[in-house]
Order: sequence, then structure tokens, then C-alpha cells
Amino acid sequence: MSTDTMPPFRERFNGAVAANGSLVCVGLDPDLTMLPVALRSLPTEEALTTFLHGIIAATADLVCCYKPNLAFYLAHGAAGWKVLLGLRAVIPQHIPMLLDAKFGDVGSTAALYARTAFDVVRADAVTVSPYVGSDALSPFFARDDRAAFVLCKTSNPGSGDLQDLPLASGEAVSLRVAARIHEWGVARGNVGAVVGATYPAEMAAIRAVIPDAPILVPGIGAQGGDLEGSVRAGMDRDGAGILISASRSVLYASSGSDFADAARAEVTRLRDAINAARRGS
Amino acid sequence: MSTDTMPPFRERFNGAVAANGSLVCVGLDPDLTMLPVALRSLPTEEALTTFLHGIIAATADLVCCYKPNLAFYLAHGAAGWKVLLGLRAVIPQHIPMLLDAKFGDVGSTAALYARTAFDVVRADAVTVSPYVGSDALSPFFARDDRAAFVLCKTSNPGSGDLQDLPLASGEAVSLRVAARIHEWGVARGNVGAVVGATYPAEMAAIRAVIPDAPILVPGIGAQGGDLEGSVRAGMDRDGAGILISASRSVLYASSGSDFADAARAEVTRLRDAINAARRGS
Repeated sequence: MSTDTMPPFRERFNGAVAANGSLVCVGLDPDLTMLPVALRSLPTEEALTTFLHGIIAATADLVCCYKPNLAFYLAHGAAGWKVLLGLRAVIPQHIPMLLDAKFGDVGSTAALYARTAFDVVRADAVTVSPYVGSDALSPFFARDDRAAFVLCKTSNPGSGDLQDLPLASGEAVSLRVAARIHEWGVARGNVGAVVGATYPAEMAAIRAVIPDAPILVPGIGAQGGDLEGSVRAGMDRDGAGILISASRSVLYASSGSDFADAARAEVTRLRDAINAARRGS
Repeated sequence: MSTDTMPPFRERFNGAVAANGSLVCVGLDPDLTMLPVALRSLPTEEALTTFLHGIIAATADLVCCYKPNLAFYLAHGAAGWKVLLGLRAVIPQHIPMLLDAKFGDVGSTAALYARTAFDVVRADAVTVSPYVGSDALSPFFARDDRAAFVLCKTSNPGSGDLQDLPLASGEAVSLRVAARIHEWGVARGNVGAVVGATYPAEMAAIRAVIPDAPILVPGIGAQGGDLEGSVRAGMDRDGAGILISASRSVLYASSGSDFADAARAEVTRLRDAINAARRGS
């Protein structure tokens, strides 16, 4: 599908959620030291490709999104970047791919990052950081068919250092950022937020400010986030509008030759747990 | 020089300043559409390599640092990334290379970005974004021989959106970030700030909070920053401690076959103007 004919991002995302009945977003974050034992002796490019294609083939009917994190490709040098550039062609076309890059640079550089994310990596969406200000984010918001998810309240223990600071106006920095996300997204519906599953109370406060924006929710699994609390606090009025992201718990569910089957079992478990929380059962 | 034997970053940076009598940092941001006419028909990798090596050879005795911006390499796909991976070997060993990437991700991903910057790209320093909080920046501060420059007050017109917001404590967000930069840098002297030349008044206020930290100063040239005002407000008590960055005005000083000579002339002009401002003459 060419860029010219692609429907709006939100429509495509909602389509994937509906097709698979799932709010699971699988993070494609390959770590060479944790790959299945049988793949570790292969050349880097072949090891990464075999692993990621296996994970995608085993889970593509269970997810609403795949999320490769840029760091896990750049860290592998030339081979890693090449694997990332080939990823969009392997993921089924109706499943969006979100590049997790936390881009946040100014002026013409921001435009270049938007082109890199959307035209070089061919991602459908990208994560960006709000510190630089709205003029530096606008290139990421400019296209109907793509989306940007802005860091709002991140999942790490130290996220409060800056994000929780109370402003003179009384609100926390993260809530001010949420208010801007709402403004930026009104025109095209293609601006989302990133809110960690480790902070369900903040999730509820942020959802109240951005009733319509999609929310990417990292922090489930290894980081100890609250799955049920986050889903209930984060879902929109249609019981959707969130992408619950899991990486390590899915990718490394088994280090044996059954890694793809084990990943499928873990995504199925997660999908069902999320759907139970959506229904309130 | 292996990582094990490298002197502290600050010592190497001061050495380059002293050796060349210069506070100029040349931004290596190659734009294919602006390259010298004779190079535009070459394959991407060859065009970028010829151009950048020419610029470096013509200016290496006039600068204190080179600063490739990650976006300008990723945007060129596999060829661009390969050129970036080869850059450190081309820059003379006594001149630091600063990777301008504005990294800002959490936990294990931050550690991976630090490894990417310092061991894969082999940069001596890197720019990072403070929004995520101190635990997510600590991997960048962990090595004596490398440095991190934290975004504080960026050069773009919209930088005030978040950075100028007054906190309940009365100070602006950017000044709170400056105070944290001071704390982070006390132990090893390897944490700097990024402050745009477009905001000399903020520069003075930030320098008062971080008397010892190096400051990277973008925004000269195309962005219209105030060179003299920024140098006077930004230099430390030794009349140094700043890196005045210029990219387009140097790289594209001529689109003819004399591009390297023209770049040399522009860097010489800039070095002298900065040194005049340092002396107050």
C-alpha cells in the first residue's frame, strides 16, 4: 500500500484491534545474549532475522501492533539497522508498526527524523519526547496516515524527577504535557501518549485530559506494572484506545527451539488477561 | 587509543581547545541536496564519505570538536549508518567527537543507547534529553572517559513550551534541569548542558547554576543566535568551557569544488569572532 492511499492511522489501528480482538503490542527488542540457544552461533543479521520473523509469524493474529525499539537495532551496528529496515515488509500489512525511538530534536532535524521513521524505516507511528517543544514535534504530526506517541508519564522509577514536578499553575508537568497532546491531536486524531503501567493513578488522571487519544502502555512484565489497573484506568469510553506493550516476557518466554510457540502462548495469555480487565470480569 | 587507557573526557576536550585555540564545534550534518554539485551524482556512501572527509581534513586544526547529528545519517538508510560508524577513525584522535542524538529512553534501553554511542559509534560524548529522569540518564554518566550533554534550553522558537514553564518553586523548568546537571556532574566532571545561542539571557542564568559544566551552544548561523552575547554569557571563569556549534554555514559555504577551502575560511572567521568575544575585544 503506498503512502498516498493509506487510510488514517487511527482507522488502521482500530482495524487491527478489531481484527485480532487484542490490545497487545509486542515489543521487538532483540538482545543477542537472550536469543534462543540454537540461534546464538549464527551471524548477527541472520540470527536477528530468523528470531524476529519467527516471533512475528507466531503472533500476528494475536496483536494490534508491533513495536521495534531503535536502540536494539543500532546497538548491533550495520547488521542491526539493516534488519530494522526490512521489518515492515515482514509484518502483515494490516498490523501497524510503531518505531520506539523517543525522537526529540529541533527544526529541520525533527523533519529529518520524521522522514526517517515514516519513509526510511516505514513505521506507521513513532514515539517522541516533548522536552523540545511543539514546533519541534509538528513534523511528526503532519501526516494523517501516521501517528506520534508523545512521552507523558514514563514507566521508570525516576520518571517523577521532571514529570511529577508541580507547576506554578498547580498541575504536574506530565498533566500539562497531556493537555498539549490533546490540543495537538484534535485536528487529525493522530497524536497519542506514552504512560507507564507502573503508574495507574497517573494513568487515570491523564486519560481524563485526553479522552480520545490512543495511549501506549509500557511497563508490564519485567518492570512490574499493574496490568488490570492500567487497562481499567487507560481504556477509552469504547473499552479500547490503549496498546499494552510487552517485550521480554514474550520474546524470551523460551530459550529453546520452541521459542515461537512459547511467545504465542504468552501473547495469548496476555491478550486474554487484558480482555478480561476490559470487560471488568 | 583503547577505552581502558583514555584520559577523562574533560581533559581531552580541554586539550583540543588548547591545541587549536578554538571553541568551534563543527556539526557534521550532511544533506544530499546541498552537497557540492560535483558530488551529487555519486552513490550515497561515496558522496557522504568524500564530502565529510574533505571537511574534516580542511578544518581539523581549527576546531575543538566534531558533532555528527544522528538524524542526518539514519535518514540515508544503510549507507548513512555505515558512514557514521566510520567517522571516528577519520577524525584526528585528539579531537573529540560528540554524537548529537538527544537520546532519552528508560532502563535497559538507556544502557543500550550508551553502548551504541560510546562503543558502536565510538563517540566521546553524546546529547541526551532529561524528560525521562535521572535513572534513565545514569548509564550515560557512568564512564569517566565519555561525557553526556543534557538538553537544558534548546535553540528553537518553541523551546519555551515546556522549558520556560514556571514551577511551583518559582524557577523555570530549564533552571531546575540545570541544577540537576550540576549535581550529576560533580562526581566526574563529565556532564554538560545544551543551551541555544538564541537565548543569551537564559544562558547567563544557567551558567550561574552550573559554573563548571561544559555547555554545547547550537543556534549560531541559520538559526540567528547571538554569537557575542552567548560567548560572554556562556564561557566559564577560565574563558572557555563552551562549544559553539555551526553546521550549515560551514558545510555549505560553497557548493563548488572549493567547498573544503570555503569551509576552512568560515571556521577561521568563526573561531576568531569567538576568541574576540572571549577577550572582550
